[in-house]
Amino acid sequence: MTRPASEIRLDTDRLRRPGDLEDVLASHKTPEQTVASLRGLSRSHADRAVLATRCDDATRKECRRHFPAAAIDDIGGTVVVGSLPDPRGTIAVVTAGTSDLPVAREAVVTAQVYGCGAVLVADVGVAGLHRLVGELDTLTAADAIVAVAGTDGALPGVLAGLVGVPVIAVPTSVGYGTGLGGIAALLTMLNACAPGISVVNIDNGFGAAVCAARIARRVAAAS
Amino acid sequence: MTRPASEIRLDTDRLRRPGDLEDVLASHKTPEQTVASLRGLSRSHADRAVLATRCDDATRKECRRHFPAAAIDDIGGTVVVGSLPDPRGTIAVVTAGTSDLPVAREAVVTAQVYGCGAVLVADVGVAGLHRLVGELDTLTAADAIVAVAGTDGALPGVLAGLVGVPVIAVPTSVGYGTGLGGIAALLTMLNACAPGISVVNIDNGFGAAVCAARIARRVAAAS
Amino acid sequence: MTRPASEIRLDTDRLRRPGDLEDVLASHKTPEQTVASLRGLSRSHADRAVLATRCDDATRKECRRHFPAAAIDDIGGTVVVGSLPDPRGTIAVVTAGTSDLPVAREAVVTAQVYGCGAVLVADVGVAGLHRLVGELDTLTAADAIVAVAGTDGALPGVLAGLVGVPVIAVPTSVGYGTGLGGIAALLTMLNACAPGISVVNIDNGFGAAVCAARIARRVAAAS
Amino acid sequence: MTRPASEIRLDTDRLRRPGDLEDVLASHKTPEQTVASLRGLSRSHADRAVLATRCDDATRKECRRHFPAAAIDDIGGTVVVGSLPDPRGTIAVVTAGTSDLPVAREAVVTAQVYGCGAVLVADVGVAGLHRLVGELDTLTAADAIVAVAGTDGALPGVLAGLVGVPVIAVPTSVGYGTGLGGIAALLTMLNACAPGISVVNIDNGFGAAVCAARIARRVAAAS
Amino acid sequence: MTRPASEIRLDTDRLRRPGDLEDVLASHKTPEQTVASLRGLSRSHADRAVLATRCDDATRKECRRHFPAAAIDDIGGTVVVGSLPDPRGTIAVVTAGTSDLPVAREAVVTAQVYGCGAVLVADVGVAGLHRLVGELDTLTAADAIVAVAGTDGALPGVLAGLVGVPVIAVPTSVGYGTGLGGIAALLTMLNACAPGISVVNIDNGFGAAVCAARIARRVAAAS
Amino acid sequence: MTRPASEIRLDTDRLRRPGDLEDVLASHKTPEQTVASLRGLSRSHADRAVLATRCDDATRKECRRHFPAAAIDDIGGTVVVGSLPDPRGTIAVVTAGTSDLPVAREAVVTAQVYGCGAVLVADVGVAGLHRLVGELDTLTAADAIVAVAGTDGALPGVLAGLVGVPVIAVPTSVGYGTGLGGIAALLTMLNACAPGISVVNIDNGFGAAVCAARIARRVAAAS
Amino acid sequence: MTRPASEIRLDTDRLRRPGDLEDVLASHKTPEQTVASLRGLSRSHADRAVLATRCDDATRKECRRHFPAAAIDDIGGTVVVGSLPDPRGTIAVVTAGTSDLPVAREAVVTAQVYGCGAVLVADVGVAGLHRLVGELDTLTAADAIVAVAGTDGALPGVLAGLVGVPVIAVPTSVGYGTGLGGIAALLTMLNACAPGISVVNIDNGFGAAVCAARIARRVAAAS
Amino acid sequence: MTRPASEIRLDTDRLRRPGDLEDVLASHKTPEQTVASLRGLSRSHADRAVLATRCDDATRKECRRHFPAAAIDDIGGTVVVGSLPDPRGTIAVVTAGTSDLPVAREAVVTAQVYGCGAVLVADVGVAGLHRLVGELDTLTAADAIVAVAGTDGALPGVLAGLVGVPVIAVPTSVGYGTGLGGIAALLTMLNACAPGISVVNIDNGFGAAVCAARIARRVAAAS
Repeated sequence: MTRPASEIRLDTDRLRRPGDLEDVLASHKTPEQTVASLRGLSRSHADRAVLATRCDDATRKECRRHFPAAAIDDIGGTVVVGSLPDPRGTIAVVTAGTSDLPVAREAVVTAQVYGCGAVLVADVGVAGLHRLVGELDTLTAADAIVAVAGTDGALPGVLAGLVGVPVIAVPTSVGYGTGLGGIAALLTMLNACAPGISVVNIDNGFGAAVCAARIARRVAAAS
Repeated sequence: MTRPASEIRLDTDRLRRPGDLEDVLASHKTPEQTVASLRGLSRSHADRAVLATRCDDATRKECRRHFPAAAIDDIGGTVVVGSLPDPRGTIAVVTAGTSDLPVAREAVVTAQVYGCGAVLVADVGVAGLHRLVGELDTLTAADAIVAVAGTDGALPGVLAGLVGVPVIAVPTSVGYGTGLGGIAALLTMLNACAPGISVVNIDNGFGAAVCAARIARRVAAAS
Repeated sequence: MTRPASEIRLDTDRLRRPGDLEDVLASHKTPEQTVASLRGLSRSHADRAVLATRCDDATRKECRRHFPAAAIDDIGGTVVVGSLPDPRGTIAVVTAGTSDLPVAREAVVTAQVYGCGAVLVADVGVAGLHRLVGELDTLTAADAIVAVAGTDGALPGVLAGLVGVPVIAVPTSVGYGTGLGGIAALLTMLNACAPGISVVNIDNGFGAAVCAARIARRVAAAS
Repeated sequence: MTRPASEIRLDTDRLRRPGDLEDVLASHKTPEQTVASLRGLSRSHADRAVLATRCDDATRKECRRHFPAAAIDDIGGTVVVGSLPDPRGTIAVVTAGTSDLPVAREAVVTAQVYGCGAVLVADVGVAGLHRLVGELDTLTAADAIVAVAGTDGALPGVLAGLVGVPVIAVPTSVGYGTGLGGIAALLTMLNACAPGISVVNIDNGFGAAVCAARIARRVAAAS
Repeated sequence: MTRPASEIRLDTDRLRRPGDLEDVLASHKTPEQTVASLRGLSRSHADRAVLATRCDDATRKECRRHFPAAAIDDIGGTVVVGSLPDPRGTIAVVTAGTSDLPVAREAVVTAQVYGCGAVLVADVGVAGLHRLVGELDTLTAADAIVAVAGTDGALPGVLAGLVGVPVIAVPTSVGYGTGLGGIAALLTMLNACAPGISVVNIDNGFGAAVCAARIARRVAAAS
Repeated sequence: MTRPASEIRLDTDRLRRPGDLEDVLASHKTPEQTVASLRGLSRSHADRAVLATRCDDATRKECRRHFPAAAIDDIGGTVVVGSLPDPRGTIAVVTAGTSDLPVAREAVVTAQVYGCGAVLVADVGVAGLHRLVGELDTLTAADAIVAVAGTDGALPGVLAGLVGVPVIAVPTSVGYGTGLGGIAALLTMLNACAPGISVVNIDNGFGAAVCAARIARRVAAAS
Repeated sequence: MTRPASEIRLDTDRLRRPGDLEDVLASHKTPEQTVASLRGLSRSHADRAVLATRCDDATRKECRRHFPAAAIDDIGGTVVVGSLPDPRGTIAVVTAGTSDLPVAREAVVTAQVYGCGAVLVADVGVAGLHRLVGELDTLTAADAIVAVAGTDGALPGVLAGLVGVPVIAVPTSVGYGTGLGGIAALLTMLNACAPGISVVNIDNGFGAAVCAARIARRVAAAS
Repeated sequence: MTRPASEIRLDTDRLRRPGDLEDVLASHKTPEQTVASLRGLSRSHADRAVLATRCDDATRKECRRHFPAAAIDDIGGTVVVGSLPDPRGTIAVVTAGTSDLPVAREAVVTAQVYGCGAVLVADVGVAGLHRLVGELDTLTAADAIVAVAGTDGALPGVLAGLVGVPVIAVPTSVGYGTGLGGIAALLTMLNACAPGISVVNIDNGFGAAVCAARIARRVAAAS
């Protein structure tokens, strides 16, 4: 009964031109559906890397079987089919704690698929400020920073007081009780005193990396 | 129709002995009621300072008229009738921004009425960490710290990573939008990564100071 | 009792170096305090424009009296003292409806103070898509887009499906009932299907513009 | 101990006359209870199709065994016993993404049981507007539109700006984090700028279809 | 700096064709802006009635001065300039209590501007069911029902159990405490057991009437 | 356009027979409307006391003018026209603090209008348990207890652990910050460990008293 | 390390005298703990029935083994050890739908243990009013009514408009989406227009029955 | 890709000196990670006890295997490797009910690791006040009290009205329905009428004990 959107008569290029490929969000799909989506995208864009995120064990296993050459990250839950583009520009992905690592790695891989380099600086939460302060040179050099933090979500605000680079903050669902599944961290980030921070959905490493990569890409294009 | 609680037959001392006087929360009272309450408490405890908090302009004016010798703080909204006790022990009251000052001053005066000294360290929010770091010696010397912060409420968590003194955090209603009238700051504080922080109600400088003063008092009693 | 943060012994430059001046958020200050803050900042940085946001009628009047040469925006509530820097790079500020204009103008002025050009494209909400589609060339040319929308907050998501420029979304408190003072628009933006959107606090045109300006600045620096 | 409502003395027809059969919501029932309910309704109304919704695997299996001729939809979770009525009037069921399909198919089947035709237009979310624009002729021809969308829930608002047909919006629980299990999509829909949209409970494809079918039925009755 | 959306190059008719005029939501406008909007719309559509909703005292006064012939409803806050169209089809607007009247009258006037007749049945809340039962014949005859209720919002659910007409429910902000400004009524309506109800934003009599009028219009067009 | 509910054909007595008069909730009414409602009810029930609640200054003034013999409570905001019935049975109304008094007095007057006696025991909050313990004999003697408390709302739970009388708890909006306008007290009461407590809406002294009076009335009828 | 509360020196009878036995809430206990608690209570009160609620399959199985004579309700999850007291007075337990039955049966059994009779009237939700109207004589005869309803929770409000008996309303977690696990039903009940309703925690059939039984007991004691 | 925070050039001692060891929160870690963390901490601090909290069955089993001498608490979920320090000062840990015991035991063990003695007083909830009153002497003697309570969370407020010792309140997630996973208890505690209470995150026995131990330690250091 479903009819494909086949009769499009408008100028598609006018109404749809962000310039990036579609990605596969595997979380509401069967392993078979994800494989099929990756195959379809990969065939129509043979020269580009294709990305699936939020791939669970079963999906990653199925992907390994169908795409033996795929780059698969078991911690970040990503599958990449095809060769990564040459990186242009660099983003930094920073985490407050080790539990934020899956979200951070989703961000790193996404940035690479979107065409920029990514350096991961893990476990520099504000409970031990010396760790963060020791990484300021690396962070200042990035075109954009993705800052990943759960529980109190205080890292991005402290960071934005220390560097002038745009910070895209990712609240994570790490925490318990009044952490409210990441809502507490989200609110902290939206209310940070230091300006220069914008925020994405809870655990959305993918979305933050797309924002950061678009910045890095524009910077690289200008240089 | 109201009958006074006159027929108490139980051992009151057993059921009611925290050892501190009642205070007057003026916010739901008429100026006349607050004056009457202060007078009553002050008469029955002539040797002790009596405190009213959340006194608005009209109440403070009325208090000035009835208690010419009272110590009245126009910013913190407090009225103290009677001589402060000699301070034993010291607490530090820290604020993130200047807008948190009314709450901080309520805390300072409360601590003094409850019998301990209080030093106020204002405007050391985490957006400019150097300000906080510069005050660490003062803060480490206190028996307890009351940390007052609105918007993102990140100050107490950063502070508790730097000092080993008990921190009582006060979220304030300073902020807008997703600040939710202080809820965002409250959640940040409850989810702080560094241990050693406990939290009171939004804008409750009074309550935090009572906690801190009881700590300082116990320390002083032991020495 | 307040002690100024005067004894800073650490290397300030290391702990505080985003490179931008402090701004004055007038909403919790008296007109006199705002004037004093502007004067202080303006004296210590004579060669740079100094910005106050959320200035109400009384504050703007007081600023007019003290800074006759200031650029004052009655709709956006901003006061700028000193000459704007030469613009490097350009951002676009887009609004869904005319009621979003105050927030949008705060963003435009902020961007200018932070050193980039800003073009305002008003009233292109998704209830009449032809309006938005007609502006795509302008929007695609910007280094970053600030998208301002209240009620359903659907504009940024539709926009990010049409252009590849980083979009910083600002939910506004325009609306009623289940709009929840901007929460509904915020949630829409955080859950937008098209990637490339990040979000700031409700009505925070200032913060969004700082993010966008830092992007534009970096692009301009690279070129 | 339960006493059946057997002693009804009032004019039932007066107090209960919407004209439609009762349906079976299987989600809080055992498979056996659902089978029994379907059998009971089906016996007392031999000439009409009887519907059960939200049937899980076990329930559908049990239904297959007892009603070999039943029309069972494994994706939408519906079971229909008896022949569908001849369709009078037509509704369109539109989805933003493929994950919204179960809710959409519940709506399609419900509409058919309630006596009208239903066309399903899937995967036309606003992240790629050209897909929606390409289906406008189909949508304009319907008597009512059921628009199903999760995550940001922006589809119905954009749609209602393009067509003059009544739109009944169904938020779905598809999404994560601040999607809040469908609350974000619900709020978006309730706050849509374009008028002509009304909303039902999260994932309630059944309820939306009943609304739409009653509209289509009335239109058909008038013609 | 605002550039009018003047360069629209796409086929407007394709992207914008619901067939109804724009309306003026006066709540975020100055009286002068509302008058100007009404005048603009009224000039470009001389043969059609033009509607402004949520007009406060000042706005209605200004409208009276500029449009002496306008139909102004002081309770519902509506202003209509121009002649109402001949009504085709009929809707019923039902209220639970007298406090819901302003919302109900906004709905009645809106329906008339949108081209259908409207009958108002007030004060038939479920606390006294006999009142509602006595109006069933009137309600059954309508093409659609707008049911307006605050506090517990129970009216639409009871009503939908009694009639087969589509019910568009409007929660109102009437109530206190846990009424949560209309949220309680909204939730009741979204969770009503009887199917056939859809819901609009709190106090949105206008939106409900547009839905209802589009239904009535379609029925009338078919007959 | 409003049609009175005049054509009621069903047996009213069957569908509406709780046996109590309607009351006037003045909060959404003009003083004139309240006076008119009181007059109407009072004329049709000359032998019974008629009650209006939530009467503000203007309404009480207008009532004083029209009903010189009315019993008007300035603290509780009630107006009673006509003679109170002879009291049968007794309820106790208990408050945690003096700020809860307006709600408590609304409850006392309501109980009297509904035909039972009421004793008010004020200011027995759990912060000083001896006050409550001293009143246990009075409380145990009542047919039902209305327990009124704001802030933490702990009184009813402690009380229900001490007496076997049914307790109807009324949360009040007294408090600030996380008191959430009475929501905190409401939740405390709903979660009380001791059984035997039921709860009404925030500040709803009227509703609690109706519950209590119906209990007392039934007890009295049985004796 | 746990010290039993063994050194109680106060007059226990004064501080603890509601007159009812403790009950066992099994939901946070192991089957063995529940058996042990029941055995302990049953031994110390050999002449009275002892109640455990919220007993899952494992707990009920263990109870069957240890108390072969116990009355165990598999639907309501209750276990009663010992003989029920002779019933004095009667309550009615009413449910909106069959899914509310477990909560209703918990209420029925609790009432019996607390010494009053209970009649269960199931499945009389407001979507089909005739069912409720047909039971009015039974309901009017009860000393108190426990009204159990999920989804929209409209039943108690309609009921309280029809009878003068005290109604204790129990919201249930039956529903989905915006039902919010029973919060929607709870809010409906707290905001019911008809007075005479009080509310307990979601799914708390036990608590409602204790309230109702205490009413019935008092009525019976008076007669 | 992760780079360790190895290049720290600032004076660590200045930026990190609370004086306590890091602890291991096992809840987001694999058993192997927890063992490794404990081993690492234990090796670098051979003379001190090292603590892991929230250890589930698998983690405790793994710890038993690797650290045969560890002190493992199956109820509180703690693992301690190394000898406890000599206790200085004492805290009391109080619980409202037996279901609060796991949180309480986490607090007891934490206090011991942090160097102070801890006495556990269980099951003294306010539903039976005599139990609490009987323990007042023990409680008054402590340097600080950790008060653990779920459901209504009323215990700390009552307690703070009876003793002058600082009370750190821990809401637990024990309860159901409107308990909201501990939010209800949290709000009760934040709004307690008696001053002297501060609050930590839901179920955070660890955090409360650190606060209490720091108080006790300071008192002991002073004596």
